[in-house]
Amino acid sequence: MSVERFADHIFPSSPATSRSEDLKGTSVVTLDDISTAQITELLHKARYIDTHRARVAHTCDGRVLATLFYEPSTRTRLSFETAMLRLGGQVIGFAGAQLSSASKGESISDTLKTVSNYVDVVAMRHPKEGAALVASRAASVPVINAGDGGHMHPTQTLADLATLQSRFDRITDLTIGLCGDLTFGRTVHSLIETLCRFGHVRFVLISPDELTMPQYVLDRIDANPTCSYTEVSDLVDVIGDLDVLYMTRVQKERFFNEDDYLRLRDTYILDEAKLKLAKPSMAVLHPLPRVNEIAVDVDSDPRAAYFEQVKNGMLMRMALESSVVGDALPGYESQVKKEVRV
Amino acid sequence: MSVERFADHIFPSSPATSRSEDLKGTSVVTLDDISTAQITELLHKARYIDTHRARVAHTCDGRVLATLFYEPSTRTRLSFETAMLRLGGQVIGFAGAQLSSASKGESISDTLKTVSNYVDVVAMRHPKEGAALVASRAASVPVINAGDGGHMHPTQTLADLATLQSRFDRITDLTIGLCGDLTFGRTVHSLIETLCRFGHVRFVLISPDELTMPQYVLDRIDANPTCSYTEVSDLVDVIGDLDVLYMTRVQKERFFNEDDYLRLRDTYILDEAKLKLAKPSMAVLHPLPRVNEIAVDVDSDPRAAYFEQVKNGMLMRMALESSVVGDALPGYESQVKKEVRV
Amino acid sequence: MSVERFADHIFPSSPATSRSEDLKGTSVVTLDDISTAQITELLHKARYIDTHRARVAHTCDGRVLATLFYEPSTRTRLSFETAMLRLGGQVIGFAGAQLSSASKGESISDTLKTVSNYVDVVAMRHPKEGAALVASRAASVPVINAGDGGHMHPTQTLADLATLQSRFDRITDLTIGLCGDLTFGRTVHSLIETLCRFGHVRFVLISPDELTMPQYVLDRIDANPTCSYTEVSDLVDVIGDLDVLYMTRVQKERFFNEDDYLRLRDTYILDEAKLKLAKPSMAVLHPLPRVNEIAVDVDSDPRAAYFEQVKNGMLMRMALESSVVGDALPGYESQVKKEVRV
Repeated sequence: MSVERFADHIFPSSPATSRSEDLKGTSVVTLDDISTAQITELLHKARYIDTHRARVAHTCDGRVLATLFYEPSTRTRLSFETAMLRLGGQVIGFAGAQLSSASKGESISDTLKTVSNYVDVVAMRHPKEGAALVASRAASVPVINAGDGGHMHPTQTLADLATLQSRFDRITDLTIGLCGDLTFGRTVHSLIETLCRFGHVRFVLISPDELTMPQYVLDRIDANPTCSYTEVSDLVDVIGDLDVLYMTRVQKERFFNEDDYLRLRDTYILDEAKLKLAKPSMAVLHPLPRVNEIAVDVDSDPRAAYFEQVKNGMLMRMALESSVVGDALPGYESQVKKEVRV
Repeated sequence: MSVERFADHIFPSSPATSRSEDLKGTSVVTLDDISTAQITELLHKARYIDTHRARVAHTCDGRVLATLFYEPSTRTRLSFETAMLRLGGQVIGFAGAQLSSASKGESISDTLKTVSNYVDVVAMRHPKEGAALVASRAASVPVINAGDGGHMHPTQTLADLATLQSRFDRITDLTIGLCGDLTFGRTVHSLIETLCRFGHVRFVLISPDELTMPQYVLDRIDANPTCSYTEVSDLVDVIGDLDVLYMTRVQKERFFNEDDYLRLRDTYILDEAKLKLAKPSMAVLHPLPRVNEIAVDVDSDPRAAYFEQVKNGMLMRMALESSVVGDALPGYESQVKKEVRV
Repeated sequence: MSVERFADHIFPSSPATSRSEDLKGTSVVTLDDISTAQITELLHKARYIDTHRARVAHTCDGRVLATLFYEPSTRTRLSFETAMLRLGGQVIGFAGAQLSSASKGESISDTLKTVSNYVDVVAMRHPKEGAALVASRAASVPVINAGDGGHMHPTQTLADLATLQSRFDRITDLTIGLCGDLTFGRTVHSLIETLCRFGHVRFVLISPDELTMPQYVLDRIDANPTCSYTEVSDLVDVIGDLDVLYMTRVQKERFFNEDDYLRLRDTYILDEAKLKLAKPSMAVLHPLPRVNEIAVDVDSDPRAAYFEQVKNGMLMRMALESSVVGDALPGYESQVKKEVRV
């Protein structure tokens, strides 16, 4: 285990030892563009923002964010936009059908060189894998990937991490169950890979045989001796062991026939009956939107954390947007110093 | 007549007697969600806002409105958005084709639970009747219905009332003609029902036989002994008696044949010739957009009040948005107290 | 040559002599709505804005711009919107598919009368020629044409002029090559016509025989004795003489057959090889988006000015928007006076 990983692992008891290098000007195409120290810093900032909303409300006064959504993704777009508005900045952009035909024909590089003249930071979603990387190279301002190709987007993982942090005050030393479509669910792949950078996590992979975790993700877990995994096919068998249950959508079209779909679906739907077997402190996460993987009656259970995840996504985007444009959160640095002294 | 109705009726000479309970946190799905005292208060606030625009320009600093328009309605959306911007707040949202497919599949409840994490108030338009009610129950912030199902939306009626108030300094003791399609025009149904809560209005219902007022609306008028109505088929016969002429669109597809349409159309088109028969103080209202029910030469007549209605709609939305988020208009309370003393 | 033209011609050494009459309340449908003195003033303001960004950031506090884009034009819309946001104002609007069907059926006049109740200034794009003029007559606030009919829009020409001004500190006494589709490219027609109002420009018109400049534009040049033109068909022959090379798109559908297209295309593509023949100080302009008229390797050449043009477009829109709403740029007047004294 590297020194850096060790330092991260003991977070959050000593935030000062994990102070990140400056994120100013950094594009975030994948989470590999950010060090674990920087992720830790973003988690701290998100918590600070949540408890000092009025104080940070003018952090980005005069800034403008562009949301360039070549395919619509309402939830994600609104989160990025709210984040900038809550920091005092402004927003321009387009979403899907609003895009003009001329702009559709233009190269991503030319669009980003153009938009760089208008704004301080870009959040971009594009159906083609690699588009965010191309954009970040052309732009003279930071570009945050809001999803490209398989809809991988780093700020979803940041939202997940922030939810663990807010529920458990840590993102390590947890038993995390991931349930449903583990083959195609890039959200869970990204979460596992990022957690493995921090280490000290036990993964319980719950899926039908048709939808197990790809080997390269398992290899990633194996590569960190402080992490481990088990693979099971029945949620009920393991739910009692979990600190976290991360549910994912099981898309009907992944299955070979209707019977399989119906059989498997019931096994992987979380409802109050199954929840009775879980720890009182377990947290249920889901990237949303859900179809029917989580019964609506679960929503009022205190273990349901998926709408908190939405809030945490916004807070992490506030932390990230303010960081990459280089605006310090008023009062944040002095609070961090104070905490270290105490 | 109830005491409450009596108190409202003598408005506006004694605003203090009709001070509303607080609207903070209230969703407005229909106008039945607001008392007549609260409507009176909104009318007062709208007038105050109009005459103190700079003073109220920071009333909602730091607030965010979401405009969730599942079907586009440009005029309504821009009015809600301008209202929040003119109060110092910000706006996020979507309109029609901007909506992503994932969001389309998501339940209204889940969308509102998500968006409640982002904003302080929601204005929602949806093609399905009942959508606004579902939304208001799921949201943890106030939801204002900007139209659902038959495109009934309470803020249109508030705009109509504010236009009566600004033209006549009262919304009672008026003879109000409603002309055109009275069968399907929900705007006029809502206006009549609301005016009947205040009482003391004479309605003149002007329509072809094919498009008369539904019985349940007539029953509503009958239920208030201070209100009355007459039904006629020719605008020219009655225009001289009216304080207010509320024109509505007569949609071609409502008619059985082309001849009927052409015959009826001419009877119900307002032009300068017909206006010569009207009182100099009469006010012409129309919910807009118009097709050809009002000739363009009427626009410059001082009796034309339909573009004022647009302004009043914005002012009432400013009054409503600031009230439901709980932000006091600077200087408003002290002015109300002063007026009462005088 | 008129006195006015003479005064403009000696710009920028004596800005005070070309001080414009006030633009407050002026709609800009074509550049003929603005005097050369006013254009000169806008060029001055744009330069001031660029060098005093923080100081002008609250010039339009409390203002609202409406972007009414009946057809989408993402680049133009974002430029207008950013301009208002960077001045402290706010934005409402619609773009293409966001427009509701009711609004589509409404007359432009009615829409503008409505929107005049909401905002302080309108930027409008419409597929029909003449739409902006109709809009400006109906609106009670200034309307800026963001393109109608043949996509002529005056702020593109203002962006072009500002780019000449920033590169050469003047917009006269230049040899300006215009290359590509000179028949249908209204951008270059508008630029020539405007430059001819200032005078003292030599135009080199570079196009295939199929796409030469229309006679009315040539007549316009001939009408000013201080201007002149030559027509050539090969860029390489003349590139060494040019101060400015304005490239335009050559649309494939303009040509009669594929062979012609391929032959001509190569002649009119600018690349580093051709650029070697040009002056070191030459500026390359292009209205964007480009298809392939300019090779990507030219982007890093210091002569490439087309992304600067984007910035200059935003700056000129800031100058124009603040001027037509009547908001003075803080510190601008005193600086102009100081410069004159020196």
